Amino acid sequence: MTDQTHDITEATAEIILGEDGQPPSKAQLKKRQKELEKEKKKAEVAARLTAEKAAREVSSNDYSTDRYGKLPMNQSTERTGIERKLIEKLSESDSGNTIILTARVQTSRQTGRWALPIKCGITSISVESLVTVEAAVVKAAVIVQSCTVHDLELQIKKIHVVSEADRLPFTFEDASRPEADFANNPAMVSVNLDTRLDYRVIDLRTATNQAIFRMQSGVCNIFRSYLDSLDFTEIHTPKLIGTPSEGGAAVFKLQYFKGHAYLAQSPQFYKQMMICSDFERVYELASVFRSENAQTHRHMTEYCSLDLEMRFNEHYHEVLDVLDGLFVSIFDGLKTRFAKEIEVVKRQFPFEEFKYLPKTLRLEYAEAVKMLREAGIEMGDYEDLSTVTERQLGKLVKEKYKTDFFILDKFPLAVRPFYTMPDPKNPLYSNSYDFFIRGEEILSGAQRINDHKFLLERAKAHEIDTSLMQPYIDAFKYGAPPHAGGGIGLERVIMLYLNLGNIRRTSLFPRDPKRLNP
Amino acid sequence: MTDQTHDITEATAEIILGEDGQPPSKAQLKKRQKELEKEKKKAEVAARLTAEKAAREVSSNDYSTDRYGKLPMNQSTERTGIERKLIEKLSESDSGNTIILTARVQTSRQTGRWALPIKCGITSISVESLVTVEAAVVKAAVIVQSCTVHDLELQIKKIHVVSEADRLPFTFEDASRPEADFANNPAMVSVNLDTRLDYRVIDLRTATNQAIFRMQSGVCNIFRSYLDSLDFTEIHTPKLIGTPSEGGAAVFKLQYFKGHAYLAQSPQFYKQMMICSDFERVYELASVFRSENAQTHRHMTEYCSLDLEMRFNEHYHEVLDVLDGLFVSIFDGLKTRFAKEIEVVKRQFPFEEFKYLPKTLRLEYAEAVKMLREAGIEMGDYEDLSTVTERQLGKLVKEKYKTDFFILDKFPLAVRPFYTMPDPKNPLYSNSYDFFIRGEEILSGAQRINDHKFLLERAKAHEIDTSLMQPYIDAFKYGAPPHAGGGIGLERVIMLYLNLGNIRRTSLFPRDPKRLNP
Repeated sequence: MTDQTHDITEATAEIILGEDGQPPSKAQLKKRQKELEKEKKKAEVAARLTAEKAAREVSSNDYSTDRYGKLPMNQSTERTGIERKLIEKLSESDSGNTIILTARVQTSRQTGRWALPIKCGITSISVESLVTVEAAVVKAAVIVQSCTVHDLELQIKKIHVVSEADRLPFTFEDASRPEADFANNPAMVSVNLDTRLDYRVIDLRTATNQAIFRMQSGVCNIFRSYLDSLDFTEIHTPKLIGTPSEGGAAVFKLQYFKGHAYLAQSPQFYKQMMICSDFERVYELASVFRSENAQTHRHMTEYCSLDLEMRFNEHYHEVLDVLDGLFVSIFDGLKTRFAKEIEVVKRQFPFEEFKYLPKTLRLEYAEAVKMLREAGIEMGDYEDLSTVTERQLGKLVKEKYKTDFFILDKFPLAVRPFYTMPDPKNPLYSNSYDFFIRGEEILSGAQRINDHKFLLERAKAHEIDTSLMQPYIDAFKYGAPPHAGGGIGLERVIMLYLNLGNIRRTSLFPRDPKRLNP
Repeated sequence: MTDQTHDITEATAEIILGEDGQPPSKAQLKKRQKELEKEKKKAEVAARLTAEKAAREVSSNDYSTDRYGKLPMNQSTERTGIERKLIEKLSESDSGNTIILTARVQTSRQTGRWALPIKCGITSISVESLVTVEAAVVKAAVIVQSCTVHDLELQIKKIHVVSEADRLPFTFEDASRPEADFANNPAMVSVNLDTRLDYRVIDLRTATNQAIFRMQSGVCNIFRSYLDSLDFTEIHTPKLIGTPSEGGAAVFKLQYFKGHAYLAQSPQFYKQMMICSDFERVYELASVFRSENAQTHRHMTEYCSLDLEMRFNEHYHEVLDVLDGLFVSIFDGLKTRFAKEIEVVKRQFPFEEFKYLPKTLRLEYAEAVKMLREAGIEMGDYEDLSTVTERQLGKLVKEKYKTDFFILDKFPLAVRPFYTMPDPKNPLYSNSYDFFIRGEEILSGAQRINDHKFLLERAKAHEIDTSLMQPYIDAFKYGAPPHAGGGIGLERVIMLYLNLGNIRRTSLFPRDPKRLNP
């Protein structure tokens, strides 16, 4: 089905043949005939091309030499089952053996990747080409500090090119160099972020990027494992929606057959509807879309949102406890499972170690305002935090509580979405919270209003047209339990944990108002 | 961040304040002033509304009665920590105890949900309302077969309504009735699929839907666990793309600031690019989008695709083995972990038990054509299968090999996408495969061409404009390993496994050309 060209053909065929059991019409048969002819023609072209290619290969086969040369394109001609060794798994016990491995040729001896000790006359193989090597493993005469494996050497018997690399747009050394090196040596060529993103396929091969995205995969894994252990159900809610229900201003609009559709800015309404459907505890991990024309270090037009929503019995702090435990579990997991990756990233982008507490610090908004005022910042009791004040608060908290991670509870009601539950003691506050890493927000959440009439009232107070979100509003008419939840920006978590300074470094193929490629 | 209204405000504030360290301009300050005023006004409105609500509640509080009545809206006023029991977890050892639980009121004694043995005068509580109950657990005088817990009864001491339900658009009994009942009793009201989908929040509460979507969550969980155990990395590739690269015809187009963007029809190109980036083994679980105007039982405009891509050493069958093991692991998991859910679904939608082999049957395309011809179906050697012939093949395979699940390998080259690797022995075939459940395709995959020049040739043969996919084509210029993969339609797997007949039954909020709501 992913092979969409195939699937589209199939869907078309299905319509022509008719699923209603009726014989196809004359026009349908004619169309079918045409398709069959096209198919036949395609097959003929394919046959000719492949034959030509085979001929070309036979005439130019320098892979006939036994010890080195280029291999023909791998078409899965045979399966011998001969084991390929992974270089990082070699140990002293392999010494004396002859092994086969596949690897990339790299002239540098850069850390975190391995260097091939080229001892035969194959200097014509270009950097980043893929080769298979047959080699004898011997104890190294000299310890090679810059390689992954320090104490062994490979004496190459045969080397063949599997896939040859063109000249690279930038060198691997430059892409992998610690940022500080550029400051110390103005002659060095820095590879700027835009160039990296333009040639992302090469850039992602650096040890730093391998580490960043393996850690990102790890965060998703821990997120789900933790919630699975608490009986959450994973859900998949639609990204195509019928109305610009979530604010309207920052929503992408598209042609949808004869009408229009919009791209979901969050799964907010749907995850709440799932709670109303008695799914009790749900999470979703999916792309969300924001048409904000903001070129900042931390906004993208598409990002990965880790969302959860949960019914509670008495108090939304039951949910806050789950979120707290979730993050501690993520941080513990990163520390233990990705210690090596953290060190790799640190070498290129040095950062201060991330500090967190076993039980996360919880501040109320009023306390935060007090701390900021004591530090000389003027702000109103019910005024929202700006990017600048958030950072200042992060610094004050770090000084006082020695943590880079904390929870800010009881935000002013007026700065939160209409469906946020007001605080029972002071209606100017609300049962809502943000989580911060190094002074930047990475989670926003709240207890949601589960009372149908009150929800309508609050929508009215926000001057929101509820007719655009009728199914959401109606979901609360048939018995809706108290619930709370939150949404986490995946890329932000990694960016801030590793202090990378730009969210584009933690997205494989980032999207912003100026970038849609690759 | 999910609380998008908040985040949007914040993003705007960020731009106004400026991240460049410059003091804000006069215009910016004026705007800021306006915002603060608006904020203050909002806070005032909020305060008034909440005060009004409190007043209303005090005047109408019938929740003051001790033993029954309506509770006020839960605003998280207190956290006593009193334990709530789950009715399905009650056992004989609870007999004699007084417990507190939250539940939905249901007059029927329908299986798979529980019935409240209402013994006090509270008949005015509407069906599907949420209540908290304080009750004594006693041994039942008579065994109640239709309840989850057969041998215990609750003697209610107190009952309070947490959230009251309006009159439902259809009854729960009707929504939960086995399909056969309608045939036997024409007076019964069948709830058709469209009505169910219109009121999906209520429909999803049926035991059948709870089972279907918990199984779907389970399939995702097993998919990831299996691949995690084989060192795959989870990836998140963009759904917003810059060019209509994947065929063009069935792609959604949207306004993207001053230009256009398109929605990804599959992560195909990106997952291959990740292989070129040395991520070796990757998977993604995400929505994909198809603008096909096809109203069939198995097509949606948005569906959840389980995609994987994997580098191999010698032969694409290394990848086929992984895919094979993956599905056997999914089927084993469904059978053992979801036996109860399967029975629940079967009660409403009876189906023949799903049969599969411990090592999946693999047929080559030529063999399948032979089987079909022997059964009297006329078709060419290199002709594609239609929905009809696929089903016929499924039946023939079931008869001969006693399996509902099989792999069809070596498809004709001409019916596959341009990036498919031709078969080395016969260039009219290819190294590509589909997986089938009950005669319908649920996975499509192949060895992909990793040779840059040959990829260009094949694109040309398909008359494809490669300038629309330059980064994809270029990814193969810098050393690309042999690789293969596949994409699985999540909703199709569940639909076919449970033989539900319509893909809309296995999507929480399905999307097709005629449906964008709820």
